[in-house]
Amino acid sequence: MIEYYDISGCYILRPWAMEIWELLKEFFDAEIKKLKLKPYYFPLFVTENVLQKEKDHIEGFAPEVAWVTKSGKSDLEAPIAIRPTSETVMYPYFSKWIRSHRDLPLKCNQWCNVVRWEFSNPTPFIRSREFLWQEGHTVFATKEEADEEVLQILELYRRIYEEFLAVPVSKGRKSEMEKFAGGLYTTSVEAFIPNTGRGIQGATSHCLGQNFAKMFDITFENEKGERSMVWQNSWAYTTRSIGVMIMTHGDDKGLVLPPKVAPIQVIVIPVPFKDADTTAIKGACESAVYTLNEAGIRADLDARENYSPGWKYSQWEMKGVPLRIEIGPKDLANKQVRIVRRDNGTKVDIPSTDLVEQVRVLLDGIQANLLETAKAKRDACIVSISTWDEFIAALNDKKLILAPWCDEEEVEKDVKARTKGELGAAKTLCTPFDQPDLPSGTVCFASGKPAQKWSFWGRSY
Amino acid sequence: MIEYYDISGCYILRPWAMEIWELLKEFFDAEIKKLKLKPYYFPLFVTENVLQKEKDHIEGFAPEVAWVTKSGKSDLEAPIAIRPTSETVMYPYFSKWIRSHRDLPLKCNQWCNVVRWEFSNPTPFIRSREFLWQEGHTVFATKEEADEEVLQILELYRRIYEEFLAVPVSKGRKSEMEKFAGGLYTTSVEAFIPNTGRGIQGATSHCLGQNFAKMFDITFENEKGERSMVWQNSWAYTTRSIGVMIMTHGDDKGLVLPPKVAPIQVIVIPVPFKDADTTAIKGACESAVYTLNEAGIRADLDARENYSPGWKYSQWEMKGVPLRIEIGPKDLANKQVRIVRRDNGTKVDIPSTDLVEQVRVLLDGIQANLLETAKAKRDACIVSISTWDEFIAALNDKKLILAPWCDEEEVEKDVKARTKGELGAAKTLCTPFDQPDLPSGTVCFASGKPAQKWSFWGRSY
Repeated sequence: MIEYYDISGCYILRPWAMEIWELLKEFFDAEIKKLKLKPYYFPLFVTENVLQKEKDHIEGFAPEVAWVTKSGKSDLEAPIAIRPTSETVMYPYFSKWIRSHRDLPLKCNQWCNVVRWEFSNPTPFIRSREFLWQEGHTVFATKEEADEEVLQILELYRRIYEEFLAVPVSKGRKSEMEKFAGGLYTTSVEAFIPNTGRGIQGATSHCLGQNFAKMFDITFENEKGERSMVWQNSWAYTTRSIGVMIMTHGDDKGLVLPPKVAPIQVIVIPVPFKDADTTAIKGACESAVYTLNEAGIRADLDARENYSPGWKYSQWEMKGVPLRIEIGPKDLANKQVRIVRRDNGTKVDIPSTDLVEQVRVLLDGIQANLLETAKAKRDACIVSISTWDEFIAALNDKKLILAPWCDEEEVEKDVKARTKGELGAAKTLCTPFDQPDLPSGTVCFASGKPAQKWSFWGRSY
Repeated sequence: MIEYYDISGCYILRPWAMEIWELLKEFFDAEIKKLKLKPYYFPLFVTENVLQKEKDHIEGFAPEVAWVTKSGKSDLEAPIAIRPTSETVMYPYFSKWIRSHRDLPLKCNQWCNVVRWEFSNPTPFIRSREFLWQEGHTVFATKEEADEEVLQILELYRRIYEEFLAVPVSKGRKSEMEKFAGGLYTTSVEAFIPNTGRGIQGATSHCLGQNFAKMFDITFENEKGERSMVWQNSWAYTTRSIGVMIMTHGDDKGLVLPPKVAPIQVIVIPVPFKDADTTAIKGACESAVYTLNEAGIRADLDARENYSPGWKYSQWEMKGVPLRIEIGPKDLANKQVRIVRRDNGTKVDIPSTDLVEQVRVLLDGIQANLLETAKAKRDACIVSISTWDEFIAALNDKKLILAPWCDEEEVEKDVKARTKGELGAAKTLCTPFDQPDLPSGTVCFASGKPAQKWSFWGRSY
């Protein structure tokens, strides 16, 4: 899917990754266009002056900003930053474009690359210095509209993860420490990787409130003729989503791709035993691919003559293709094909006449099974705790910890400080919207103060 | 379509431009996927060391390369370049990936941004420091395959210009001076802007030959077991194409968009004269938009109440929407709509029952008319010359000059030197594939040596 590049933290995305990215984009772009988002493209570059306008924002991003200082052999008059995100690139123009309530809502989206020159462990997909994303930036007259959209978008992100990538996620709100730098509040979808015992942020939908509006002077004349300040959101998901999917479903044999995002859903492999009629077998394979393609199923033929069927099986298993169809002399004679599932290895012989119907049923089954299996594994990692000792035990056990919390920033800082270590500190992942019952009198596991909510805690990527 | 940005040479692409870019991309991406091109994404950054591997190539691009030298407050160990194009980014990996003839052809395409920090006049779309493009990079075992693909892609570029943007172009080969830095030969589609009397390169399809293969050591084992060097192509078109379209069709009232790329093909405007039944009129407008959308025509309603119909007419004319539909009380009574063409202003009343059919005919007619009109204007600028004096006269007259030429690099240099001036020097645009008859004994207009071909000369963007 990727190739390491000679600049640390940068990776080459190969077709197997890009085709997944394109499938996700197709879905998401169509959905946001229904919400009246319009495509924009803002520059890669931002001046130092503008980048620094929102104080919290620049504090959050400054250490990771890459600076262009030269062109050809000449020094630039002033260094120019490469966007780590585009709030400061866009908002001076929002200020210019928005005059009246009739200019609202303003809804921008762009698909682009961003650069965050991180020094912590670069990891393909999960933490790379350049990555691809979409960033939506929207402006409303009222907080109610902004609040509503934050959740509409979060639901689309949940669908990307659960319906497409078959990765179970929790919707929730980020803590004050973990929210977007400069924003009012951040919602996210959070996944969890059982093997490593770490949470991972899947995508974020931020309500920026009026903080950026103040800094960038984005106001409008309301219907009464008074000047008002706008309410803003920004939201993004990145190529990281592909990495979360890989970690969730991968096994000893390699990738396991959910059918909805698999560039090839069905690989057809001829199995020409000795003395078989290879022409007839190849013909049956081509016919199967043709029939499936006509039905809108992404099928392909591996007719390479210099590789054995067994070698091909391994290769396509490694690439994670959901279904393999084998056609040999016996299948030809019985007018059937053998179908093998990647997710659980089960084999079934089906009559060629039922091909499309059976393949559809199997693909739907795999898609559902992957999500169910991942959900069961994730759920098995969730531990509800109530005391500090239980918290530490669960953390050492690499669990996804659901803890009653006082929701105070100082307490999260304190927990981080007390859990520092080689594996990284514990932190909040989110306060899930789906809250278990919190009996009155429940106290915070860390501070002993009255608990406000149940929050997910753990180590994270 | 664009907004000026606070960094010179960078522009914000607004939805009216991006939607055109998306329509072009949809066509082109589907076509190259039929040619088995695969999507890739290579990093934005390239090390100095790799960038300099191909000597002619780096000489061509070095003066315009933007360099990242800092991240956060730290200096990088070595400066890192931002891609001006991705040959040097990709080819070290091609060398790694290609081992055998079975790995060929390799066909990569990426849609991305590139940066060329130019110091000559920045102009929106036409010459900007960052722009969007696709870049295709392909690798073949034989020169024949490479040659064939160069022309397949050039034909797709012609179709983008002529079938979509309604801009007439000439296919041809670039001179040695004007070819891609480091390549073997360059083909292009060339447009001409009558108003300014300048040629403009529309898109280029390069055969790189084996130059990069030598520098980056890209070889394969052929079917006889011998090591051979690959043949490579690269090809690109950019957001400049939108600029060429704007300059070609625009008039005093603003843009004129060809229907195939118009984000809105039909704008429907209610014309509620005094005492009219505004509800019924708005209903008829909504019904028209609905009917057209259902038929796959991009129609929209301008129902804003605070603007007069006349103001709306001007605004949509300025935006270049191909057809305007007006519905007033009289139209309602007669069960008709009034349709006004943007390209020639003609008005026609058609029965509402014929709406879809008539709109389709009109849109096709506008598309054809824009290309024909542009072609007639362009053709009227072509002047065949045979002597230096005629050449200079035609150049002063801002013509597209077709001249018999000896095809020698020194002679082109000499012509450039002799025509230097405020408006810029004359240069070759291309040697068109479609060659007029060249009587034997014809001599070069500039050198007096035997002419090899007819070439287009002029000033250019």
